[in-house]
Amino acid sequence: MTGVARYLPMLGWARAYDRSTLTSDLVAAAIVTVMLIPQSLAYAMLAGLPPEVGLYASIAPLIAYAIFGTSRALAVGPVAVISLMTLAAAGSVASPGTAEFVAAALVLALLSGLILLLMGVLRLGFLANLLSHPVVSGFITASGIIIAFSQFKSILGVSASGETLPELIDTLVGNLPATHLPTLAIGVAATAFLFWVRKGLKPLLVRAGMAPRPADLLAKTGPIAAVAASTLAVVALGLEEAGVKVVGEIPQSLPPFTVPLFDAELWGRLAIPALLLSVIGFVESVSVAQTLAAKKRQRIDPDQELIGLGSANVAAAFTGGYPVTGGFARSVVNFDAGAETPAAGVFTAGGILVAALFLTPLLASLPVATLAATIIVAVLSLVDLKSPAEIWRYSRTDFAAMMATIFITLIAGVESGVIAGVGLSLALFLWRASRPHAAIVGRVPETEHFRNVRRHKVFTDPRVLTIRIDESLTYLNARWLEEFVLEQVAEHEQLKHLVLMCSAVNAIDASALESLEAINHRLADAGVSLHLSEVKGPVMDALERSHLLENLGGKVWLSQNAAFDAAVASADRLEDAQRPPDLWLARGLI
Amino acid sequence: MTGVARYLPMLGWARAYDRSTLTSDLVAAAIVTVMLIPQSLAYAMLAGLPPEVGLYASIAPLIAYAIFGTSRALAVGPVAVISLMTLAAAGSVASPGTAEFVAAALVLALLSGLILLLMGVLRLGFLANLLSHPVVSGFITASGIIIAFSQFKSILGVSASGETLPELIDTLVGNLPATHLPTLAIGVAATAFLFWVRKGLKPLLVRAGMAPRPADLLAKTGPIAAVAASTLAVVALGLEEAGVKVVGEIPQSLPPFTVPLFDAELWGRLAIPALLLSVIGFVESVSVAQTLAAKKRQRIDPDQELIGLGSANVAAAFTGGYPVTGGFARSVVNFDAGAETPAAGVFTAGGILVAALFLTPLLASLPVATLAATIIVAVLSLVDLKSPAEIWRYSRTDFAAMMATIFITLIAGVESGVIAGVGLSLALFLWRASRPHAAIVGRVPETEHFRNVRRHKVFTDPRVLTIRIDESLTYLNARWLEEFVLEQVAEHEQLKHLVLMCSAVNAIDASALESLEAINHRLADAGVSLHLSEVKGPVMDALERSHLLENLGGKVWLSQNAAFDAAVASADRLEDAQRPPDLWLARGLI
Repeated sequence: MTGVARYLPMLGWARAYDRSTLTSDLVAAAIVTVMLIPQSLAYAMLAGLPPEVGLYASIAPLIAYAIFGTSRALAVGPVAVISLMTLAAAGSVASPGTAEFVAAALVLALLSGLILLLMGVLRLGFLANLLSHPVVSGFITASGIIIAFSQFKSILGVSASGETLPELIDTLVGNLPATHLPTLAIGVAATAFLFWVRKGLKPLLVRAGMAPRPADLLAKTGPIAAVAASTLAVVALGLEEAGVKVVGEIPQSLPPFTVPLFDAELWGRLAIPALLLSVIGFVESVSVAQTLAAKKRQRIDPDQELIGLGSANVAAAFTGGYPVTGGFARSVVNFDAGAETPAAGVFTAGGILVAALFLTPLLASLPVATLAATIIVAVLSLVDLKSPAEIWRYSRTDFAAMMATIFITLIAGVESGVIAGVGLSLALFLWRASRPHAAIVGRVPETEHFRNVRRHKVFTDPRVLTIRIDESLTYLNARWLEEFVLEQVAEHEQLKHLVLMCSAVNAIDASALESLEAINHRLADAGVSLHLSEVKGPVMDALERSHLLENLGGKVWLSQNAAFDAAVASADRLEDAQRPPDLWLARGLI
Repeated sequence: MTGVARYLPMLGWARAYDRSTLTSDLVAAAIVTVMLIPQSLAYAMLAGLPPEVGLYASIAPLIAYAIFGTSRALAVGPVAVISLMTLAAAGSVASPGTAEFVAAALVLALLSGLILLLMGVLRLGFLANLLSHPVVSGFITASGIIIAFSQFKSILGVSASGETLPELIDTLVGNLPATHLPTLAIGVAATAFLFWVRKGLKPLLVRAGMAPRPADLLAKTGPIAAVAASTLAVVALGLEEAGVKVVGEIPQSLPPFTVPLFDAELWGRLAIPALLLSVIGFVESVSVAQTLAAKKRQRIDPDQELIGLGSANVAAAFTGGYPVTGGFARSVVNFDAGAETPAAGVFTAGGILVAALFLTPLLASLPVATLAATIIVAVLSLVDLKSPAEIWRYSRTDFAAMMATIFITLIAGVESGVIAGVGLSLALFLWRASRPHAAIVGRVPETEHFRNVRRHKVFTDPRVLTIRIDESLTYLNARWLEEFVLEQVAEHEQLKHLVLMCSAVNAIDASALESLEAINHRLADAGVSLHLSEVKGPVMDALERSHLLENLGGKVWLSQNAAFDAAVASADRLEDAQRPPDLWLARGLI
């Protein structure tokens, strides 16, 4: 794709749009809308924002993503983890509930949008690679736990605050005696109902004769039923007067046109949180989009996804929203409900718009405890208890990075958690990269194969040492290579030839080249010739642009076998030449 | 080595110490002392410190390194680049010439010592790997240029200041009209003499019948001759009264016992500069030590070197010194003069102590211009004009990192230069690591070899795709792998089998494992089986601890050839099974 089409993936699908696609998209949009209404209210309140902000964040951003995004089924909008990160970031510059807090959320959305757009245009999507799977998984799990705990206060009808687990538990336990029983009743009932809808409703519907897929989709609309039932209960039983907290009046309006504050100091303070939030949102969204695209052998373009999500966030910033990204659960529903193009997102936006204009009066008496129940049931699926055990079995260092991320996120908050996770992963990676695998190899008798002397019975010669390097040579391991080679030379007194077997070396950077030159000189000083064997084509091409080959004490050999034979023969010749004449006499040669 | 011996390398060489070793060490120490006296004064003044601080930094630190260091020939003390970094760091908290500045230099030495000791004990020497060769080379070149320009003021006899090239040039040019001619005469004469000593004296001595090595060593004592001659000239011609700046009175004393200030805020401000200075000093010192050790097939232990250099800096902090490290030129002289053990360093310290106690009155009339000439001639060897061209030919990205480091060091100062260099190298490394080399391969006809389809005429099958991955799979390239594989699947409509040829994969981390699992599931959704071929032993061991193999759509094959044959055969069977019955009839099978 080139030119406009690259940046407007919409042109690809809009041309082939027909009535059957329209029907599929409309059906999917209707189901996602029903699912999204309570979620968007709940996540906005989780982020410390007025509930209507959640609705506004589910309109314009969806349209922007439909135009610029590349996934056919991704459903964009407010999500739990990004809402929690918004609470932490905006909470660091203002108090939730204030106008400054809402303004900070708009700035966060704008910054996040600009960062994503910039990364997209500069094709910097690879920066998201810095988040390893264990770190992301640990971060999401810890966030899920924090979110769940942050909602218990609404279930109990008490006040509690904090962005870390200890703070939350501390304030919750302190306020436990103040538990409001009618609220608790609604909260527990809603939670139980939603768990049952999640686990028990589908099998029931299937047994009642419904096909599995519609049964599944119907079960996803459970939250709206909980919303309706608990709202009716509040109204019918006068529970609001009894002290049950309700959502309250939500303005009936189009999304407002908002201009995010331009304040250099505020932008400076929110820049890092916005970056973290953008990258986490991008990583999660792309992973969902890829999973869904693969099912239909479609492709998404990660760099263009940055532009799609970036424009969605910019749209959120100018229409009274807050940071958004692609949500896992709702994208799966969208896909399963048959969404075929991003137009489904536009129709969903239309549905939410209708809700914002006409349905908000019905939500005034919706108990907050019901929304809390929705969030708790939704985020518990984020808590991944299987991965840690699997990662533990597979790699102790990855496990350590994951646990550190979970622990630091729970104790010190989301931003510290992400930063620590990225830092740790990178440190572990660099540590490993600085100690690559290498083996001293010898010839397997009667063959031309060379194997690790520690694992196999092989033939070696004290005057010839072969080191097989199992990694590309870069500046991170160049110094290690120097040390390793010199250590070997110091340990092998009779050494005359050292062969570096490069069959697994895919690249040699300028630092490693200089180290090889240093090794070559130092070996020459010590009377040892340096040889290379089995150098790959592209690596050889690069070496030919350097001075290494012309100064090399030994030679470059196509095969390790040839290198070994020649080195042994050369060492033999040298010994013959150095033998004192009387020995020659004794051998009858003179 | 274990226990005490590991931390006290001295025990190794002290036992075998005899009269002949003593003689060698004494001769080397005498020559290094003569070389070090003017250098230590000059570098201290370059660092903005009183000249005697340079002498003090050349006494206790040398003894500490002799006890804890592992290099037999490394000569520790004040060096040019570290002096420049000290000026920049201490200059950020106090003005040169004040007591606070001297105190800051002591704190820098202590912090640097503690950082090096900590890195040594925790075996964190690998952190020095973050400095790639091009970055270090660029940094040293730029530092050399800044140092040379900073000395021109003393040659011209004007005042100038600044830590960056533009500042230095700006103040120099402004003060040019104030050039002091007698000073300029001394400065130019000393510079010319030192250049001639460096280039012309040795050949002359050799032609006069001297052996090359003593001729070389004699030439190294040139600076002391320049010091003596110019001091005599100042005294004889009364030039001090004519306005020629001289070193002035230097106290005759033992190194004082100093206790570095413990001030949390000051430590906080100097921590990062101390870290940068420590790492740069360590990298330079280890590289010198390795070069010299290799010449005698000796070894140095980089982790223990951290401890040796760390204790040298702690010693400097408590004896009125400033940060030190192993110097290149003087270590080479020490080695060439025959130093056999670190005891030579102890004798050098003794020589400098004698100088501090008895010779300082002779130095009062030494013109500063002579010291400036010493520095200019010494640092010009740091400016490396050959490397850039070589690196340009070898690798454009490494060249870019080098040039950026040079440019930022010259324009923004030494600390920014180092940080930018490290950041850039890392960014480039991560960028490369995130796009590993991979090739689609096919079978070379009549062989069992598989080669890149773009470079060779090979046999392929539209239903079977083989991707050879030329890199270990880590979290940095896991996402790339997912994208690359899914892209290929989207492009090959008839695909039934996808083989990942893992002959160059040395490791698969937990992130990459999860990506492989995701790929396996997505391929299964798309009706494609995932196979692995030529998986290395250690990688296979790790995979067996995961769930990948049991869920794998295809199989793991020992050889790529077997994998390809089996996949093609399986695709054939599938097509036969799917053929409609009438075709079977037509083929006469029914």
